Amino acid sequence: MDEIKRVFEVSLPQYVEDWKTYLRFQSVSAEESHRPDCDRCAEWLKDYLQKIGFKSEVWKTSGLDLVFGEKQGEPREPTILIYGHYDVQPPDPMNKWTSGPFEPQIRDEKMFARGAMDNKGQTFGILKALEYIFEQGLTKATVKVLIEGEEEIGSPTLIKEVERFADKLRADILYICDSGSIDLEHGALLAGLRGLVSLEARLTGPKRDLHSGQHGGLARNPAIEMCRLVASLHDDDGKIAIKGYYDEVSPVNEAQRQAMQKLKFTEEWYISEIGVPPTGGERGLLWAERKGLRPTVEVNGLYSGHLGEGDKTIIPTSATVKITSRLVHNQDSNRCLRLLKEHLEMNAPREMKLEFVYEHSGANALLIDITSPLQQKAKAILDEMFSNETVVVWEGGSIPVVPRIMEVSGAEPLLPGFGIEENNMHAPDESFRIEQLRNVFMFTVRFFKAL
Amino acid sequence: MDEIKRVFEVSLPQYVEDWKTYLRFQSVSAEESHRPDCDRCAEWLKDYLQKIGFKSEVWKTSGLDLVFGEKQGEPREPTILIYGHYDVQPPDPMNKWTSGPFEPQIRDEKMFARGAMDNKGQTFGILKALEYIFEQGLTKATVKVLIEGEEEIGSPTLIKEVERFADKLRADILYICDSGSIDLEHGALLAGLRGLVSLEARLTGPKRDLHSGQHGGLARNPAIEMCRLVASLHDDDGKIAIKGYYDEVSPVNEAQRQAMQKLKFTEEWYISEIGVPPTGGERGLLWAERKGLRPTVEVNGLYSGHLGEGDKTIIPTSATVKITSRLVHNQDSNRCLRLLKEHLEMNAPREMKLEFVYEHSGANALLIDITSPLQQKAKAILDEMFSNETVVVWEGGSIPVVPRIMEVSGAEPLLPGFGIEENNMHAPDESFRIEQLRNVFMFTVRFFKAL
Repeated sequence: MDEIKRVFEVSLPQYVEDWKTYLRFQSVSAEESHRPDCDRCAEWLKDYLQKIGFKSEVWKTSGLDLVFGEKQGEPREPTILIYGHYDVQPPDPMNKWTSGPFEPQIRDEKMFARGAMDNKGQTFGILKALEYIFEQGLTKATVKVLIEGEEEIGSPTLIKEVERFADKLRADILYICDSGSIDLEHGALLAGLRGLVSLEARLTGPKRDLHSGQHGGLARNPAIEMCRLVASLHDDDGKIAIKGYYDEVSPVNEAQRQAMQKLKFTEEWYISEIGVPPTGGERGLLWAERKGLRPTVEVNGLYSGHLGEGDKTIIPTSATVKITSRLVHNQDSNRCLRLLKEHLEMNAPREMKLEFVYEHSGANALLIDITSPLQQKAKAILDEMFSNETVVVWEGGSIPVVPRIMEVSGAEPLLPGFGIEENNMHAPDESFRIEQLRNVFMFTVRFFKAL
Repeated sequence: MDEIKRVFEVSLPQYVEDWKTYLRFQSVSAEESHRPDCDRCAEWLKDYLQKIGFKSEVWKTSGLDLVFGEKQGEPREPTILIYGHYDVQPPDPMNKWTSGPFEPQIRDEKMFARGAMDNKGQTFGILKALEYIFEQGLTKATVKVLIEGEEEIGSPTLIKEVERFADKLRADILYICDSGSIDLEHGALLAGLRGLVSLEARLTGPKRDLHSGQHGGLARNPAIEMCRLVASLHDDDGKIAIKGYYDEVSPVNEAQRQAMQKLKFTEEWYISEIGVPPTGGERGLLWAERKGLRPTVEVNGLYSGHLGEGDKTIIPTSATVKITSRLVHNQDSNRCLRLLKEHLEMNAPREMKLEFVYEHSGANALLIDITSPLQQKAKAILDEMFSNETVVVWEGGSIPVVPRIMEVSGAEPLLPGFGIEENNMHAPDESFRIEQLRNVFMFTVRFFKAL
């Protein structure tokens, strides 16, 4: 353990330089204008994989490029497929960043940049470990790496086209670092990911913005009607009010409840980190259940009418909402997307036009059996690395492509979690501690040695 | 009548050039960045008034400049005070304009530009008429002109500081062209203006945008809570649900109902002009009542979270709404603003912070006695100018400063209406017909001759 730590410390300055290069690519998949940045990032990654010992290639798709690398091991040894993503969330609001989102900077032993954690930092920790593993000949396994560029928009292309690459992706273990722990003192194993569907809906009323005096009392207001529509999505107890949405949701079982109770969580901590008490979701349920094992419907974006400063006395022509819903258990993402759309259609005013600007039935939820030999092996390493017993985490987030890659590769997923709340994932001042990078590095080396 | 028309036709090319110069000023009062444009516009107007025969000056205030002109008449003759505004609404959405909002262009005998009608076009028609009236010595009255620069943001400065100018503004008649008729074939006299209050409210939850997977089910969503808050403003019958809001609102009387029934209005016409049926406001009331004699609460702008393209899986840190409310009868604007704010405060979630970014208790409503000798004189001119009998209009809009100027000047208001729906006031492709400019010109000349 100490030897691995020493190697990491010695190599750190070079690691940081390469990591910064990776972070400078403005690989924002949600914005068409950043497509060239995504392409350049993929090309750089391909070369980087080559440099550290992989045979690598860029796979062209109907969407953004996939980067694939393979290092052949010995026959009869297992195949480990690593999945990560090189794309990042949009950086706005820009004015809330201390330093530029694409000008990576280390302050207080933390790397600050968009993607510092999610997912460039975590993937980079694995790649650096693999470089060392290959150099030292520490594994006989076949190692494959798949890094995609559309995870932050729900991996639409990979989900659709993954079958094409089925032969290449065949594996025994699907190893991913893209989840979190409860703090820096606990290792974590992921027991579940929520599924995801998303859509953007636009409600259009009058042909154009109307004078709110001339038409107030005559024309219905799309901004108000949109608010009434959004308000109809939940009941007063925070439960989703879409008919049939909970049909495939099971209550938590006793084992899950026990694991959940081990997760320390206080309202004070939440308030100090987040600024509000954890009063979201359905009233009366455990926080870990509300976060990991219950569905949500959230508004991620909303706009209508005059967005500039000051008054503008109009009835806006339209209102737009961006909605994502997290899914759990056996909820079918296609069915949930359909139910959500039907709810909006049924509750929108007859006089207005409701359009779906886009929709993605992104992914079903994933539940991992944490008692398997593979998970227990990983747990033992984590137990040794951290001062406390490894916690089991039901992640509230989604990696929509994971269930698809599992199907196609035939692999068992393994998702140790190294992220923490402080990392500001998807928000301004996203960061990743050097300590966290080291944890990814060390776990990866030890895991490959233990195989 | 024909002589006046001839004068107008002959002078038109020069009128159009001057009018275009006036329209090119980007005098958007709502946007701080356009302050210099407003200042330049005021300066130009002052010079213009001088050129057409006034003694003019710019009055400095704590806000945007006031332009004042006076032409002394004979003693014992009446004083007519003309009020208008040189500021305009913001031009967005820019991409919906056929030609630039500040690049005035005549197409099909209509001037297209922001302010073409509201209020640069209408004021300009009066000024051109006065130039002619002065040249020909057609009046013995004292004529005063007050043109302000903050009408589109509720005239906050003039309302506050008008007392300072009380001596200068003393008058018998307050003549304003800033309202509308039902079409080009009917003259119109304004019988009422609605009052106005406005505010911007921001609801803040988490310290920063949160990952919607990590926090969905834990943190309440400010966008959703804002929607629930907005939805609470009306009941299911379109009635305002703010406690006490209707206390000072009277039902229409019989005379008003009869005048209203003369206003032709069909659902088909509204749908073809506006694109939606007139199903807004309170169910079961006449359209003219809902538009002119009932209060409204409208959302003019709304935003939260990710406004760019594509998904961004966040719970936004805050949500912002811009609200205006139109008032009627004896509703006190200060009281209504207070009731509106109290409603929002009481219904906002306890866990979040509700702030008022700005608030304006703009103006009370105005009701004009249409049977007075002055109004009847104006009606006679309009009856002669148009092929149909003059209609009485309760305007849905507001000119918040009018009640204040009335108080200070001691004048009786006279508001003939020349605008029509087609003019797209406050919207893209705002326009004003040459024919409408001529109507303002002709009415003004005839009215001064008839005094």
